[in-house]
Amino acid sequence: MTQFINAKEDIVQEALDGVLAASGGALSRLDGYPFIRVILRSDWDKSRVAIISGGGSGHEPAHAGFVGPGMLSAAVCGDVFASPSVDAVLAGILAVTGKAGCLLVVKNYTGDRLNFSLAAERARTFGLNVNMVIVQDDIAIPGLSRPRGVAGTLLVQKIAGAASERGGDLEAVTRAAQRAADNAISFGMSLDTCTVPGSTKEDRVRPGEIELGLGIHGEPGVQTIPFEGVSQVMSRVIPEFAKRLQLGRYVALLNNLGSTTGLEMSIVAEELRQSSIGSAISHIIGPAAMMTALDMHGFSLTLYPLGAEDADLLSADTKVRAWPGMQPFSAALVIPLPVGLEQASLAPSANPANKAILERACAALIAAETDLNTLDAKSGDGDTGSTLAGAARALIARIDQLPLADLTQLHRAIGQELSQTMGGSSGVLLAILFTATGDALSRGLGLTSALKVGLTRMQEVGGAKPGDRTMIDALDPALDALPRGLAEAATAARAGANLTATMSKALAGRATYISAEQLKGHIDPGAEAVARLFECLRETLPI
Amino acid sequence: MTQFINAKEDIVQEALDGVLAASGGALSRLDGYPFIRVILRSDWDKSRVAIISGGGSGHEPAHAGFVGPGMLSAAVCGDVFASPSVDAVLAGILAVTGKAGCLLVVKNYTGDRLNFSLAAERARTFGLNVNMVIVQDDIAIPGLSRPRGVAGTLLVQKIAGAASERGGDLEAVTRAAQRAADNAISFGMSLDTCTVPGSTKEDRVRPGEIELGLGIHGEPGVQTIPFEGVSQVMSRVIPEFAKRLQLGRYVALLNNLGSTTGLEMSIVAEELRQSSIGSAISHIIGPAAMMTALDMHGFSLTLYPLGAEDADLLSADTKVRAWPGMQPFSAALVIPLPVGLEQASLAPSANPANKAILERACAALIAAETDLNTLDAKSGDGDTGSTLAGAARALIARIDQLPLADLTQLHRAIGQELSQTMGGSSGVLLAILFTATGDALSRGLGLTSALKVGLTRMQEVGGAKPGDRTMIDALDPALDALPRGLAEAATAARAGANLTATMSKALAGRATYISAEQLKGHIDPGAEAVARLFECLRETLPI
Repeated sequence: MTQFINAKEDIVQEALDGVLAASGGALSRLDGYPFIRVILRSDWDKSRVAIISGGGSGHEPAHAGFVGPGMLSAAVCGDVFASPSVDAVLAGILAVTGKAGCLLVVKNYTGDRLNFSLAAERARTFGLNVNMVIVQDDIAIPGLSRPRGVAGTLLVQKIAGAASERGGDLEAVTRAAQRAADNAISFGMSLDTCTVPGSTKEDRVRPGEIELGLGIHGEPGVQTIPFEGVSQVMSRVIPEFAKRLQLGRYVALLNNLGSTTGLEMSIVAEELRQSSIGSAISHIIGPAAMMTALDMHGFSLTLYPLGAEDADLLSADTKVRAWPGMQPFSAALVIPLPVGLEQASLAPSANPANKAILERACAALIAAETDLNTLDAKSGDGDTGSTLAGAARALIARIDQLPLADLTQLHRAIGQELSQTMGGSSGVLLAILFTATGDALSRGLGLTSALKVGLTRMQEVGGAKPGDRTMIDALDPALDALPRGLAEAATAARAGANLTATMSKALAGRATYISAEQLKGHIDPGAEAVARLFECLRETLPI
Repeated sequence: MTQFINAKEDIVQEALDGVLAASGGALSRLDGYPFIRVILRSDWDKSRVAIISGGGSGHEPAHAGFVGPGMLSAAVCGDVFASPSVDAVLAGILAVTGKAGCLLVVKNYTGDRLNFSLAAERARTFGLNVNMVIVQDDIAIPGLSRPRGVAGTLLVQKIAGAASERGGDLEAVTRAAQRAADNAISFGMSLDTCTVPGSTKEDRVRPGEIELGLGIHGEPGVQTIPFEGVSQVMSRVIPEFAKRLQLGRYVALLNNLGSTTGLEMSIVAEELRQSSIGSAISHIIGPAAMMTALDMHGFSLTLYPLGAEDADLLSADTKVRAWPGMQPFSAALVIPLPVGLEQASLAPSANPANKAILERACAALIAAETDLNTLDAKSGDGDTGSTLAGAARALIARIDQLPLADLTQLHRAIGQELSQTMGGSSGVLLAILFTATGDALSRGLGLTSALKVGLTRMQEVGGAKPGDRTMIDALDPALDALPRGLAEAATAARAGANLTATMSKALAGRATYISAEQLKGHIDPGAEAVARLFECLRETLPI
């Protein structure tokens, strides 16, 4: 996979230089490139217990992103997914450790354990007080004697950092960190593996599947199951936590493993709140990318019992920007709608013929959803079909509340519904079309003439005219032909829609950003929708 | 593509509920689900100018994530990539606007412009003072009369929000926002399109290509070119900015479009600093995900002239966590390495035969890089080959500084080099092996016996023994056979390596997290490396 890197060998060094450049001087590095990559607090004076962490890179913002007042004093950065060397760790220890000593926070991987242990041994020969806490919060693999350290590491770092910032001595800081390491439990899951720079991505996880219990290096999970939605997968994972929970309140740390979108992470947060353990979770950290696995499309959940001291340490102020803070976790606050939004209520009435027409038209739009999205993807953002189908579904759901027996009121009501349920430019433009058509009908015009009035008003507001490659290119000729019957109107709509495929430049809507070359040969999705609508009505109606 | 969602229709609503739940009560919503999705500051008292923004969803954290003191008073959220309705915008305006009036910050898309304009018109009939600023910062498409609004919108929101927070009246706030909208310039690029929930991802961008000048909805860019690294692509894009820059300092906003990793974004930041316009950029906002396009693997750069008033407004404190703050942008601060790291210097000496052996061994490891990575991907994180090849390359680069004529010193020197250049557990374990071998040689042992001592010491520290599916399974039998010649040693190493493919359970290293089923049939990459090494020496040496 292509990635925003230069030479593979320089990735970590260039990235750390970028972190330093964007830190505004808050961070420094040791002069040991390329093998010694240690990021330090620029303002560190060794007067308190130094907190050092590190390990392989590829977990950004961990660990360099958490260096700063209230968290880490230094981060020792290895190559991607590879532990830093003993010398690098030793350099970090020597650089930040004073009489107060230092605490190493180490994720439980063989390489990290070895390099940090041996560096600690060497540092002690310099007369330095060095303690080490191993984090092994992963609960995904049953019966493992040495569980992995994953996102729970952030809790250990924050608690240790805050304890140090408050002036705790090495033993007190170590005790707090060890308590965090002993009690944090984590579980990760992902819809895909990650892409190691310069390597080919494994296609181990098939589309439609999810790996449960995977780590932060792309190593396979313990189980692969079909993915049926966030609810389903959370119902599989929550019991792993539930059986380990005790009385009392918990904080959840919700960690984006890399490329999961903001929308998805928030959905996961809400699912967690509504889960069987939601009421035990009083606070949340995130959702945010804290301990990533490069571009992994997954997330991890960490739970930690929130005693008074830890609540204090976790909520302590820190200038570290990658730390998302700890917030109370609770249901949404809902405020009543402001007055003034109510529109004139239009009394429902029955008319089986009009109802059938409307239902068929809506069904045609729903059936065209995928085709219209595909067409729109050629020239816009691929949502025309979904937008129209969504409005059609909403209209069908409300059909018995509509004034079906009164064409004037019916057009106004449809305009009103569309302005409430349909987003996008098409929503408001169609609302204007229907509302203006209703107004024209109320003034005694016939349906075709009234629709023409609606079309004109829509053009005035929207600024598009025939030939601009919009729905107008199908609607305008269709309305011209409508007095000669639906069959002629449908034929005209189709011809108009097809003509848009030859129009080289869009002048309205998002397609204006697309080159003539890319547009060529593709029918405008709005025009296609109009053509489908008339074609469906031709099939259905006995006119 | 599979995504962490439930029903497609509920995505935005569920996600907003998650945002609200994790806000700790700082955010509220209007009671208008599903069609009116307005997120509000819970502490808003209408005493100052309300700042309202919004648009389609899919750009998280924009816009709901920027609601809070010092930025937005409310965000009106449409469906994914679709503008919210007039009613939704009107509801937002009515909910937060008092006598001070409100400013709408709107990205320049037809739908947003229409819906926000019509809502503003309706709000004015309620006697409210409503101004609107349209953001059109995209410079990617030459000659466009209506450029798109992209990440520059964040600058407008921050400047307007800070101006309002300081008590500016509607005209002053609008003036500041309009100045930002008039002067922000942005350019986006991506290595892939985004995945619209529920839709199939377009494979428009081929691997190895990059789209320049694309927007934030997956619409195609203006140009697709082969991607040859960050340096190359920045050298294409920087001139677009350079020709528009004037005298004075600028702030850069570096925006992750979705799934770009932290490593990549930091590399881009460093590339920007080193570019021809780097010296004109005094401050940076980010790199961070601010205005995303779902999971798009790309980024955008925005530049803005940093006058004194704007510097003040942009650096003003805000509690909005998605705002990454503005920092000075400058080269890394470098601190000298601490004393104590220097190791005994080993004087270089020449020996063509030893040099040739070492070079061939290193070449064998470099040649095996891809194969070993592939093997490691079956059981670990796919980096064994790169780790060994990297160390081999470093050793070759230093070969003439090694004490090649003295076997004792040579082994110590190799151990020293490996501890400096090779990360991971293999790095420190091999360093121990070579250092201990050197020590044994210095005590007068023969090479094979000395290597045996080194192997024993490595096992003590690492905790692995024969049969644990590690490099030991090849190295141990090879050393046993070595007294009978290199050919026998190579045969024994190969047999030992092959045997690891039948070992059902790894007991050391990252492979311990993998099930027996997944390991079966794959040779341990460390053992394979040892076998390759001996096989290469057998071919090369006349023993």
